[in-house]
Amino acid sequence: MKNKISDAVVNRLPVYRRYLEELIDEGVEHISSNELSRRIGFTASQIRQDLNNFGGFGQQGYGYNVEDLYREINSILGLDHEYSMVIVGLGNLGQAIANHTRYYKMGFPIIGMFDINPKLIGLKINDIEVQDSENLVDFLKTHKVDIGIITTTKEAAQSIADKMVEGGVKGIWNFAPLDLKVPKRIPVGSVHVTDTLNSLVYHIVHPDQG
Amino acid sequence: MKNKISDAVVNRLPVYRRYLEELIDEGVEHISSNELSRRIGFTASQIRQDLNNFGGFGQQGYGYNVEDLYREINSILGLDHEYSMVIVGLGNLGQAIANHTRYYKMGFPIIGMFDINPKLIGLKINDIEVQDSENLVDFLKTHKVDIGIITTTKEAAQSIADKMVEGGVKGIWNFAPLDLKVPKRIPVGSVHVTDTLNSLVYHIVHPDQG
Repeated sequence: MKNKISDAVVNRLPVYRRYLEELIDEGVEHISSNELSRRIGFTASQIRQDLNNFGGFGQQGYGYNVEDLYREINSILGLDHEYSMVIVGLGNLGQAIANHTRYYKMGFPIIGMFDINPKLIGLKINDIEVQDSENLVDFLKTHKVDIGIITTTKEAAQSIADKMVEGGVKGIWNFAPLDLKVPKRIPVGSVHVTDTLNSLVYHIVHPDQG
Repeated sequence: MKNKISDAVVNRLPVYRRYLEELIDEGVEHISSNELSRRIGFTASQIRQDLNNFGGFGQQGYGYNVEDLYREINSILGLDHEYSMVIVGLGNLGQAIANHTRYYKMGFPIIGMFDINPKLIGLKINDIEVQDSENLVDFLKTHKVDIGIITTTKEAAQSIADKMVEGGVKGIWNFAPLDLKVPKRIPVGSVHVTDTLNSLVYHIVHPDQG
């Protein structure tokens, strides 16, 4: 993987991963790029091109070995390791994420929870006690934390991101509706929930643009 | 707007909208494409090209009128109307969305809530009583509902989508981790939360690919 992989390809890898997981659940062992195309909706040539970026695991006339491809994509995505996370902002959305046990099973344990709301500090969620956000930097400096999750208000998010960077997280998963300013070495994955609603409404209003 | 606008442009419109909202809050009245570029991170030529799709509101040497541009983008996005919504699946995430009063203020009232869990049926969230999902199609046929929100499990999501289509929703906002199969005329906006985590981890693991 010497060449730079475009963000578009990187963003499609989790999609491949999801479909391959489904195929495994269905007991499918091999799949052609054409059949994968029919399921995912990307063109077969797009699929071949995408997967070629990573060495091309398909065999002519035989297709892809589903389990091998799944394992390989997991490895490319770095999902064969565990990543510890902290979450800041335990409002409705924060609690929904903190309670989502699937992340723990996937290898993404949340080991610290922080809020500024006195009503939330001291609350236990999934056996973790919510701490005062004041303690965030100290906690990050004394624990191995890979990912900081931001589920605060828009107003608080940038200052929390600054503290996460100061504390040494390797990446930030941001749910606040703004684009964070962080040093280039720190990747940010943003979930702009409301943006997706806005785009959906656009397609409702402009059906001809579908 | 005779030409088809690409999805990439449509997906950038909510981003422009967010930044314009910030500019209004800051009291900024005019902005050049260069200054907008500095803030958003898109190139100035990208910005001019995007906004030209919709008629080009900029004036040479004067820039964009922030309020006009904001109003115009809202109108293009269809945000000058109200859209009623129902939500199916009142687990942690569903409750977070149902409790998020910002959507009500933005003109997206949730007028019906549905779940199959007897423990949730009858519960009141934001003054709406959670009903049995059995009633979904009837409710949709007897109320004006624009958007169906799916926050069920992956396993239940497709059958709920089918019911929403049967009931006549105009679009689906999907949070379940799968790509729904619906008739082409029904737009789907998907929030693949876990995909964004996977892409983030990729960038942590491959810092050279930044």
